[in-house]
Amino acid sequence: MVILFGGLSRRIFMGGSGLNMSRRIRRTPFTDKVESYGVTGFTVVNHMLLPKSFKKSVEEDYWHLRENVQIWDVSCQRQVEILGPDAEKLVQIMTPRSISKMRIGQCLYVPLLDENAGIINDPVLLKLDKNRFWLSIADSDVLLWTKGLAYGLNLNVKILEPQVFPLAIQGPKAEDLMAYVFGEKIRSINFFNFKYFDFLGTQQLVARSGYSKQGGFEIYFNGFDLGPKLWDLIWENGKKFNISAGCPNLIERIEGGLLSYGNEFTIENNPFECNFDKFFKLDSDHNFIGKENLEKIKKGGINKKIKGVLFDGGPCPPCTKPFPVFSKKGKKIGQITSGIFNPRLEKNTGLSMIDNDFWDDGNLLDIKTFDNVLREGIVSSLPFN
Amino acid sequence: MVILFGGLSRRIFMGGSGLNMSRRIRRTPFTDKVESYGVTGFTVVNHMLLPKSFKKSVEEDYWHLRENVQIWDVSCQRQVEILGPDAEKLVQIMTPRSISKMRIGQCLYVPLLDENAGIINDPVLLKLDKNRFWLSIADSDVLLWTKGLAYGLNLNVKILEPQVFPLAIQGPKAEDLMAYVFGEKIRSINFFNFKYFDFLGTQQLVARSGYSKQGGFEIYFNGFDLGPKLWDLIWENGKKFNISAGCPNLIERIEGGLLSYGNEFTIENNPFECNFDKFFKLDSDHNFIGKENLEKIKKGGINKKIKGVLFDGGPCPPCTKPFPVFSKKGKKIGQITSGIFNPRLEKNTGLSMIDNDFWDDGNLLDIKTFDNVLREGIVSSLPFN
Repeated sequence: MVILFGGLSRRIFMGGSGLNMSRRIRRTPFTDKVESYGVTGFTVVNHMLLPKSFKKSVEEDYWHLRENVQIWDVSCQRQVEILGPDAEKLVQIMTPRSISKMRIGQCLYVPLLDENAGIINDPVLLKLDKNRFWLSIADSDVLLWTKGLAYGLNLNVKILEPQVFPLAIQGPKAEDLMAYVFGEKIRSINFFNFKYFDFLGTQQLVARSGYSKQGGFEIYFNGFDLGPKLWDLIWENGKKFNISAGCPNLIERIEGGLLSYGNEFTIENNPFECNFDKFFKLDSDHNFIGKENLEKIKKGGINKKIKGVLFDGGPCPPCTKPFPVFSKKGKKIGQITSGIFNPRLEKNTGLSMIDNDFWDDGNLLDIKTFDNVLREGIVSSLPFN
Repeated sequence: MVILFGGLSRRIFMGGSGLNMSRRIRRTPFTDKVESYGVTGFTVVNHMLLPKSFKKSVEEDYWHLRENVQIWDVSCQRQVEILGPDAEKLVQIMTPRSISKMRIGQCLYVPLLDENAGIINDPVLLKLDKNRFWLSIADSDVLLWTKGLAYGLNLNVKILEPQVFPLAIQGPKAEDLMAYVFGEKIRSINFFNFKYFDFLGTQQLVARSGYSKQGGFEIYFNGFDLGPKLWDLIWENGKKFNISAGCPNLIERIEGGLLSYGNEFTIENNPFECNFDKFFKLDSDHNFIGKENLEKIKKGGINKKIKGVLFDGGPCPPCTKPFPVFSKKGKKIGQITSGIFNPRLEKNTGLSMIDNDFWDDGNLLDIKTFDNVLREGIVSSLPFN
C-alpha cells in the first residue's frame, strides 16, 4: 500500500482509513453502510467509530447540508440508561439544571458536574418514563460515573448502556424526508421532544434534535441487525431530496457555536466558562454535586470564557491542536480549540477560550496557526452570523 | 492528497495518518517525536493518541523487539491518583485482589469490578506511599468510576489524573540502555517494582514492567515540556543498542497472551472468564464491589473462557472485528478477538473467547476470516510457545 501525501510518499500498514481498527474501537449498525458510501476518515468517541469525512470536501458537505438532507451515523452518542425508583433523584444530583418540571417525551441539555464543579460531560437527557431516563452523552464514560455514584449512594436504580444507536437526519429537507418514511405524525414533534414510530414491527424513538443548526431528527435506533435496512429505507426515500451520507460538519458546527466536549471544554472547566449559566439557577432549591463550589466560583468570578473569533489570512491549516491566541501586545491570552475557514463568511472561524480582559466582542487579537502565520482576529459572540 | 490503496484510489481530507485529529484526541509529550520518527498510524486509548504502526511492518518490528530495544509512547496509560487517608480503603473495595501486603514501591495487576462482577478495567496499581496510589489504566474512564465511588461513599480522598505520561523501553537490551542513561541502580529494580531516578533535576518514577514479554521498563514521566528531551536522551544513547521507535506489537502481544481491555474482554465479562482467578482468593476476608455476584458466578460456573487458538490457511487478514469461531459441526462457539500471523510459529495466532464444551487444549475448530476462508484451528493454552 502506497500513500502519496502532497508529494510525501510513505507506506502504511492498516486496514482502510489509517486509524488502526480493532474490536475495542466499536463498529456500529451503520459502519458497513458508511464504508460503502465512501467514508474516508473516522474519529473515536465513546470507544466507537464516528465518521468524520466522506469523498466530498468539508466545504462541499457544508453547502449540501444547508440546502438538502444528510444521514449521519452518530451511534457514538451512547445512552446511559438510569432505571428505577431513585432514577430522578440520581439524575437531579448530577446536574445544576432543574429537571423537576421535565415531561415524559422531552429532551433537555444537562451539563453534568463533579464535586469541583468541573464538567464531566454535557449530555442530552431524555425522560422516557417516570423512573426511566437516558443520558445521551458526549465523549466520556458517564456510565462509570453514574454507576459509581449509584453504588456509593446506595440508590435503587439500574444503570446500563442499552443497544441504542442514534442515526441523525439533518438539513432543511429532513422533515419532508422523515414524513415520507415514518408518516405525517413526525411533523408534530416539537424541538427537543420525541415520539415513537414503527419500523418493521419495532418501536423506534425519534427526537427533533441533532448536532447542527439546520434542523432535523435523531432516530435512537434499537436493534443492531436491522440497522442496514433502516439506512437503506431512508436512503431510497431520500434520493428525491438529494440525500447524502455525512457527519457533523466542522464549518457548520463552529458557525452555529455548537461546543464539543474535550475540544472546547474539559473537566478542568466550569459551567460559567462555557456560558452554561443560562441553563440553571443557582438559587434553585435542588441540591446537586458541586453546588457549593459552583457558588464559590460565581462569587469569585471567572477569568476566561468561551467566545467566537473571526480571523483573516486566508484558509487556516487544520486545527489539529489548539492555536495560541495573543493580545496585540503579544501576551498569550487564550487558545482557539476548534477552527476552520468558513466559505460563506469568507473568514476563518474559531471557538476559543479567552482571558477576561480580552473577551469583549470586537476586541482585536492575533492567532498563531501552524503554518507559522500570525493572523489578526476579532472577538465575536456565538453563534456566528 | 491522493491515496493509492492497492489499486484503489481516493482522496482523504485530514492531517497525517487518516485519523481526524483534534484537541479531544489528546497529544502526548512524545507525539511530535513519534511523528518525526515515522509513525504511520494511531489508535485512541483514554482519549489520547497511541502509535500503532511505524514505517516498518508489524513483522519487522516483532523481530526487532525480540532482539534489540524499542522506545514506545504509551502515555495513554493514564494514571488515576488516589490520595488521602481513605485511599487504601477505596482501592481495596475496587478489586478482588488483596492489597493488604502491598509494599510502597510495588506494582500489582488489579482487575476492577462493578457490582455485577463485570470488569471495569484491568490496571496496574502502584503504591507510591501509604496513602497514595496510582491506577495505571487500560481504555475506560476509571477516573470517573473512582470519583463516583468516592463521592457516593463520602471517603476522605482526592482523585485526579496527574500530568504523568509513561514512556516504555522494551526489549532484551532495555536494561543495558537504561543503565547507560540512568545509572547501574536501574538493574536493582525487581519485576513489577519501581524506584526513582534523576532526569535534569526532576525525579522520575521508573518501573520494571511493560506491555511485552521481552522485558523492559516504563518511565512514568512527569513534566510535559521536557518530554522531547527525555526522548532524545534515550534515543542518542540507544543508537549503540540498535534502538527503534515502536509500539505494543500485535504479534508479540498475542504470542505472550497479553490481553487488551475492550478487545479480549469488556464490562460484560467476569474475572473467571478471563482467567484472572489466579490473582485473588474469594475466601479472603476483605470486602469488594461485586463480591456477592462473583461468588454466585463461581458456584454456577462459567460457560466461556479466554483461550489461545492456532490456525492455518496462510496469513489471515487484519482482525478489525472479531472472527467467528465454529465447531467442526458448524455451530458458532466463540470468536477470535485479536488475531495475526506469527512468523516464528508459522501459524496464525488468536486470542479468543470459547464456549465451555470446546475450550479444552487440542480441540479442533473452524475460524471464518473476512476473506471468507474457513480455516482450521486448534485450541491452545496461553501464552503460545
